[in-house]
Amino acid sequence: MGRTVTTTIRVEWGDCDPAGIVYYPRFFHWCDVATWNFFAACGLPLAEVRKRYGGIGFPLLEASAVFRVPSRPQDLLAIATTLGTLRRKTLELHHAFSRDSIALLRARELRVWAQDDATRPNGLRAATIPAEIVRGLTAPPDDG
Amino acid sequence: MGRTVTTTIRVEWGDCDPAGIVYYPRFFHWCDVATWNFFAACGLPLAEVRKRYGGIGFPLLEASAVFRVPSRPQDLLAIATTLGTLRRKTLELHHAFSRDSIALLRARELRVWAQDDATRPNGLRAATIPAEIVRGLTAPPDDG
Amino acid sequence: MGRTVTTTIRVEWGDCDPAGIVYYPRFFHWCDVATWNFFAACGLPLAEVRKRYGGIGFPLLEASAVFRVPSRPQDLLAIATTLGTLRRKTLELHHAFSRDSIALLRARELRVWAQDDATRPNGLRAATIPAEIVRGLTAPPDDG
Amino acid sequence: MGRTVTTTIRVEWGDCDPAGIVYYPRFFHWCDVATWNFFAACGLPLAEVRKRYGGIGFPLLEASAVFRVPSRPQDLLAIATTLGTLRRKTLELHHAFSRDSIALLRARELRVWAQDDATRPNGLRAATIPAEIVRGLTAPPDDG
Repeated sequence: MGRTVTTTIRVEWGDCDPAGIVYYPRFFHWCDVATWNFFAACGLPLAEVRKRYGGIGFPLLEASAVFRVPSRPQDLLAIATTLGTLRRKTLELHHAFSRDSIALLRARELRVWAQDDATRPNGLRAATIPAEIVRGLTAPPDDG
Repeated sequence: MGRTVTTTIRVEWGDCDPAGIVYYPRFFHWCDVATWNFFAACGLPLAEVRKRYGGIGFPLLEASAVFRVPSRPQDLLAIATTLGTLRRKTLELHHAFSRDSIALLRARELRVWAQDDATRPNGLRAATIPAEIVRGLTAPPDDG
Repeated sequence: MGRTVTTTIRVEWGDCDPAGIVYYPRFFHWCDVATWNFFAACGLPLAEVRKRYGGIGFPLLEASAVFRVPSRPQDLLAIATTLGTLRRKTLELHHAFSRDSIALLRARELRVWAQDDATRPNGLRAATIPAEIVRGLTAPPDDG
Repeated sequence: MGRTVTTTIRVEWGDCDPAGIVYYPRFFHWCDVATWNFFAACGLPLAEVRKRYGGIGFPLLEASAVFRVPSRPQDLLAIATTLGTLRRKTLELHHAFSRDSIALLRARELRVWAQDDATRPNGLRAATIPAEIVRGLTAPPDDG
């Protein structure tokens, strides 16, 4: 059973649009924030990991969200992040957003371990996720 | 055969992250921009439509994207937007991003016509899309 | 002697640009966040205040910042916010950003109490700040 | 007499806040966009200039704006950018925003030519602006 890492954010005035609710791309920003928190909780600070392996990190292959309840300024949101399927080059993360135990939305990210590749037009190539990262992601939580 | 509306955007320095590529939530911002353009091209300026019907517009039920090629500062992107399934309360939009005819990513939005509802905790309820909007969305393009 | 309200934020990956440092407009976003915190600490939750007085709140007349030290992903920043000059229709806020007691930047906002005005082309007009707000802003802190 | 470079942007729904007007940090984003355009119009594409000189570019020393008229979704804004004082390590830019010849706001940026500096805690140091850049910025416009 994998770990769940919870990130708490507050919806700010500037996160919302003229309808008075969160402008939806902001939820993906918070998914990204939650992903960094998840890695940090696994003992894998992404900034250092990127430097150590010369990679650019984990850019997105896929992202999706299903929205159920809107959020408004000053709402406090909890994002519960869990690891989904882990493959040789990719990993999947699930983010469940709630407020006072009301489910607000669910999001999914599929990310790939990518390295710079000067020989390719877009300059990136997928690579095998380093063993250290796999170990960190799959180790039982300290409190588990 | 529905219309395709093309929105052109330029990737700015501030749209990109320390990996030097577009920070992915920005792509959803551009989907939203493309949606407004699509409505305007259908003779439906959303700002006026919202006022006329007292609705809050078309918030998201679902959003997703599949990323293939990253984008970098100063890239010029074309977003080709088409209408997918149109239901009584919801509509689906497809956004295909390309650069110099290279496919970069595809995104999908499922949006719902929503009105303020003071009787509900979250203050929104789905409603039947007004006939004027349906006509505008499904009319053949002027040049078609 | 006025109160100082401290807001803590973490610099996220998506707040930074390809130079690896915070994209500077984000600092003004955090000034806005700090302003909301300042009002809340004065017993003046802006969302409720706006509703009660039918105003649109405190849009900006002027904003400025002097940057000394850049910030990077995962930096924890403290924003110390104080009230500057309070006039009949305007108020001034000072925001001092620091990290581990290193001064990073100083910002200043001059805001005006504005109400909707359907008779004007831009739809806003300055108004006298309600007495309740003045009292809240100038009352000594509870712990003072 | 220096050149004036005009950048046109459209205010998008997602640039605006629950008051229905542009969330003010976005104006600084557009200043940054206008600065890149200004450099490009001077024959100095910043992305290439950064690579050629190994610098990080022109981060901000100071930024300020004076707001007069708010902007709303779908407004078309023209940003007229001119060079102010050019010093050995710094340059000043002025950005005047207007809509249909109505002056909306004026902004000023003071930027410094910065290079990475591994010996300093914050990793940046000011440097003399390369002569090629000074020539590009001060050459009369092609059409002048």
